[in-house]
Parts: sequence; structure tokens; C-alpha cells
Amino acid sequence: MQSKPKFDPLNKDRSPEDVAIDSDMFKLKGRIWIDGEDGTYLGYGRVVLLERIAQYGSISKAAKSMEMSYKHAWDLVESMNRQGSRPLVVKVIGGKDGGGAQLTDYGKKVVETFWQLQENFKSFIENNRSLLENLK
Amino acid sequence: MQSKPKFDPLNKDRSPEDVAIDSDMFKLKGRIWIDGEDGTYLGYGRVVLLERIAQYGSISKAAKSMEMSYKHAWDLVESMNRQGSRPLVVKVIGGKDGGGAQLTDYGKKVVETFWQLQENFKSFIENNRSLLENLK
Repeated sequence: MQSKPKFDPLNKDRSPEDVAIDSDMFKLKGRIWIDGEDGTYLGYGRVVLLERIAQYGSISKAAKSMEMSYKHAWDLVESMNRQGSRPLVVKVIGGKDGGGAQLTDYGKKVVETFWQLQENFKSFIENNRSLLENLK
Repeated sequence: MQSKPKFDPLNKDRSPEDVAIDSDMFKLKGRIWIDGEDGTYLGYGRVVLLERIAQYGSISKAAKSMEMSYKHAWDLVESMNRQGSRPLVVKVIGGKDGGGAQLTDYGKKVVETFWQLQENFKSFIENNRSLLENLK
């Protein structure tokens, strides 16, 4: 276990969706996600979307920044809000742009937890690099 | 790290392709694979195919047992033989069925190594179960 990463939606050094480490010839790769009662609850793309919503204060701007349709982003938010113990994203009424969206405390905790899992998974992949030597 | 699993092509208790563990509401899932120079070198399905080849002594019987076309199985074997440091599967000339296929020592080592990785990954998933509590 590593120290808990800060919630930082502006961090550009996010690990890519597939975690990977290579020896000379071979690359150990992997992916993790979390299922809820309806199937996928959290995965890399969903968590990046949550971060972008926190960053932009708007689902439509977050979607645009990921080249994702508003409908798809909204469906993902609905899927997470439905499956979460509490809502992750709430609408903010009013404001200069006529309203927006933001993460709840639960939503922030979910994002932090997923990145903690992702960090642990990166360590797992690195720690298993030596097994790739068997493939030589 | 756990003890090295035996190479046992008849073992029916293989972990499913997606490794998973659940808390009450949520399930942490994941998948690992190994890339070579042409893309995927080893994954769950490819390694099960290798085991079945060892079990049946035949690519076509192995393919049939997995409801996979002979062409697809052959393409996968070719992909592994091409990317491996040495061939994993060799043709056996003659015999009562007019020839067959078997794993090389390198092929057996590759299978053992992948299952070792998969076992380690299962432990990783189990060890991270507690983080799912944060999602409640």
C-alpha cells in the first residue's frame, strides 16, 4: 500500500487506462474496474469523466474535453449515481452559466479510491516484472 | 508471491478470465495479459488453448473443446510461436491419428508462468477488497 493520493482533477500525469510494464521483449499489461448491481460501476474512463466534471463544473464541458457526446456522459453519470451508495454528481442550480454540475463528497471519495486502486495495481504490475524473465 | 503452481492441463478449477472479488455491493474486477512485438502474446484464452493442446495432443481437438475454429486456434498458435523466444507448440509427425501437436518445454514454462501471474493477480484483487469499503 502506498500513501493515499490527493484528489487532484488537474493532474495530467494520470496513468493510461491499461497499466503496463515491459521487460526487453514482453510487456505485462492489465486493467481493473469495479462492477455494481447493473454491470460496470467505475472504470478508468468513468473516473476521468468525474474528474473533468469537477474541473469544469459542467457535464457538457467535461464530455467535450473527452470528445464524448453529452448523452453518453450523462448516461455514465446516471449509471454511477444509480449504482453508488449516494449520488456522485449533483446539478448546481443557477450561476453565471445557468447551472452546472459538481461532485459530492462521496463522488470525490470514489475518485480517490479508484486512483488508489490504480496505484496499487501499477505497483502489482511492477512487482511482477521479474516473472517476464521466464518467457525469455 | 506464492509457491509455483504445477503445470496441470487437466485442472478444472482454473480461475475465470476476469478475476473478481466482491464486497456486499461492489465487485473489484480485472484482467492481465502479456504483449509481445505484434500485440497480444499471452492471455487467458491463449493459455487455456495451450493447456488443451497438451491435454489432447492435437490443435484441432483442442480447438473443438473450446468451440473455437481450427483456423482461429492455428492463428493463435502461430502468433505465440512467432513472438515467443522459442516455439511453444510443435507438430508431432505420425502416430495413430496421423500426427498431432504438443507443447515444448518452453511452452510448458510459459503456461506455468502465466498461471503464476494469474494467481498473484488473484491475491492482489483479494488484498484490495478492503478499499471497496470506501465506496459504501
